[in-house]
Amino acid sequence: MVTIAVDAMGGENAPKSEVEGAIRAVRALELKVILVGQRDILKKELDQHPGARDLPIEIKHASEVVTMDDSAAKAFRTKRDSSIRIASRLVREGVAQGVVSAGNTGAVMATAKMVQGMVRGVDRPALASAFPTLKGRPVIVVDVGANVDCSATMLAQFAIMGDIYSRTIFHNARPRVGLLSIGEEEHKGNELTRSVTPILKSLPINFIGNVEGRDIYAGDTDVIVCDGFVGNIALKVSEGLVDMIAHMLREALKSTISRKVGYLLARSAFAEFKKRLDYSEYGGAPLLGVKGVCIITHGSSNANAMKNTIRVAAEFAEGRINERIEDELGRSAGFRTGPAAD
Amino acid sequence: MVTIAVDAMGGENAPKSEVEGAIRAVRALELKVILVGQRDILKKELDQHPGARDLPIEIKHASEVVTMDDSAAKAFRTKRDSSIRIASRLVREGVAQGVVSAGNTGAVMATAKMVQGMVRGVDRPALASAFPTLKGRPVIVVDVGANVDCSATMLAQFAIMGDIYSRTIFHNARPRVGLLSIGEEEHKGNELTRSVTPILKSLPINFIGNVEGRDIYAGDTDVIVCDGFVGNIALKVSEGLVDMIAHMLREALKSTISRKVGYLLARSAFAEFKKRLDYSEYGGAPLLGVKGVCIITHGSSNANAMKNTIRVAAEFAEGRINERIEDELGRSAGFRTGPAAD
Repeated sequence: MVTIAVDAMGGENAPKSEVEGAIRAVRALELKVILVGQRDILKKELDQHPGARDLPIEIKHASEVVTMDDSAAKAFRTKRDSSIRIASRLVREGVAQGVVSAGNTGAVMATAKMVQGMVRGVDRPALASAFPTLKGRPVIVVDVGANVDCSATMLAQFAIMGDIYSRTIFHNARPRVGLLSIGEEEHKGNELTRSVTPILKSLPINFIGNVEGRDIYAGDTDVIVCDGFVGNIALKVSEGLVDMIAHMLREALKSTISRKVGYLLARSAFAEFKKRLDYSEYGGAPLLGVKGVCIITHGSSNANAMKNTIRVAAEFAEGRINERIEDELGRSAGFRTGPAAD
Repeated sequence: MVTIAVDAMGGENAPKSEVEGAIRAVRALELKVILVGQRDILKKELDQHPGARDLPIEIKHASEVVTMDDSAAKAFRTKRDSSIRIASRLVREGVAQGVVSAGNTGAVMATAKMVQGMVRGVDRPALASAFPTLKGRPVIVVDVGANVDCSATMLAQFAIMGDIYSRTIFHNARPRVGLLSIGEEEHKGNELTRSVTPILKSLPINFIGNVEGRDIYAGDTDVIVCDGFVGNIALKVSEGLVDMIAHMLREALKSTISRKVGYLLARSAFAEFKKRLDYSEYGGAPLLGVKGVCIITHGSSNANAMKNTIRVAAEFAEGRINERIEDELGRSAGFRTGPAAD
């Protein structure tokens, strides 16, 4: 049975969402959760839920908490007994197979990289995120923020890791992998995209060429590769636009009586629509390329989002994604254009 | 009176939208339009509109048409009598003060740059686009696709040009200028954003620091600066997301009777909402930094979008934006970090 270590102090609603999410996860799925954080607080929170003591949930004490304002490097240096660090250590020691956190993204990434270590052949871990699409099936965008300045070799590794993610978790037999650029033609792009194209063509993946920003939501691509600066902008622009659209619709719908009545009649349609747009349904952003599993979710995650993230962490652990990455990067090692970091 | 040259053969609905847009523009505003394209076709189209012959609209013949599939460089080399080229030439010769096109963006940009020439002090022209925001007031993003690989000096010039655009067209006395990055803190970003920050701080603009992707739609910034690769991704991701959301809402709203009735009652709210999201309302994307005015609009522009674009071209010409750019770049010339191109 898979064990997932949950950083129970990281999110904005910690430890409430984390504890409730863990309870929902172990009730719905075959797995064990270790809640990492201040023992007294976690015990008290668990006791709010009748019957929780009989569930496969353990508490592991960690005296310190990394806040959203801490810098990643400083948190790693000075908070050696933080909940995120202890959680990562449980994975390194083999006590848990994966870690889940809604905490400070930079600190979680740095800790996972340094404590859990990197898969052989990976120069830099990358953050992947699943976006909803018109066709209903999500598309994986990688990297959405772990690496701001990327080499062609790094992007090629992201493509291989994203391909494995799509096959393992979304069961796409032969994922269509696209390179995010500003035009479909091969010559349209920047220095980085032009230099990575021949490498992507040489890999044993189903590379379909350049895709544009609007193709993210079209659903005709399964994996989209880009540097972490561009991927983060794509993700955040989308979040901002969804907020604006929701606000505009709300304003427009409450301005007259007939619109209000219309809204009441169609309310369930809006709820359904909101759910389809909700990123938390997809279960967080995995950090691909670290040993063991590390999944980062929104700081504002509720219990349902935490539960989904724990589920995805278990699926990653069971899918042995890291072993596949090591294996396939080893077989594709010829594409390297620069010195490796390992 | 300002004269605007309209590339009447460029768009997907050419020359219908172009001719109708020109008629609407000269009826609503004090300006003259020269429709550039195949004389017979344009004459026939104009004759569809009773009374059009008495309006301040002229036809200038151009025998060739640049298609969406033509490469920019090849079109410029081989189609020397294209409608876009003749339109740009009218501006160079002073017959018109600005050109408007719904044609091949790359070809329009290359032609404007080479035929009209660049404003002194500008290394590269930049494409600006106005995005709608939560606060109702649009934000200008520059560059949205003219330059994929940018230097810090180029981004600093984009900031100055965007600032002047915002002051002149949107009447912001002191536009808040932000740098698009992946975190608000100064150190969060890539090599380019970190290197441009000190330059932006030294300029006589109201630089507010880094902004994130989600801040585009928040409405707390008036000008957002980024390289053209990132800006194009932000623009296209937004277009794709709006399409997906519209589709999802439509599907959800027609699935049951009560939802359908609700939709009918609230229909005007959706129309209003769609209009606020419609980029064409903002009148196209100006190419900042070329002599004279050049405004590019969507290939799928309808007559209303064409009319708005012609209006914005006239406002640009009347606002003497180029002279301001030359003047303010001259005064800020100290920020150059590399050799100038002029």
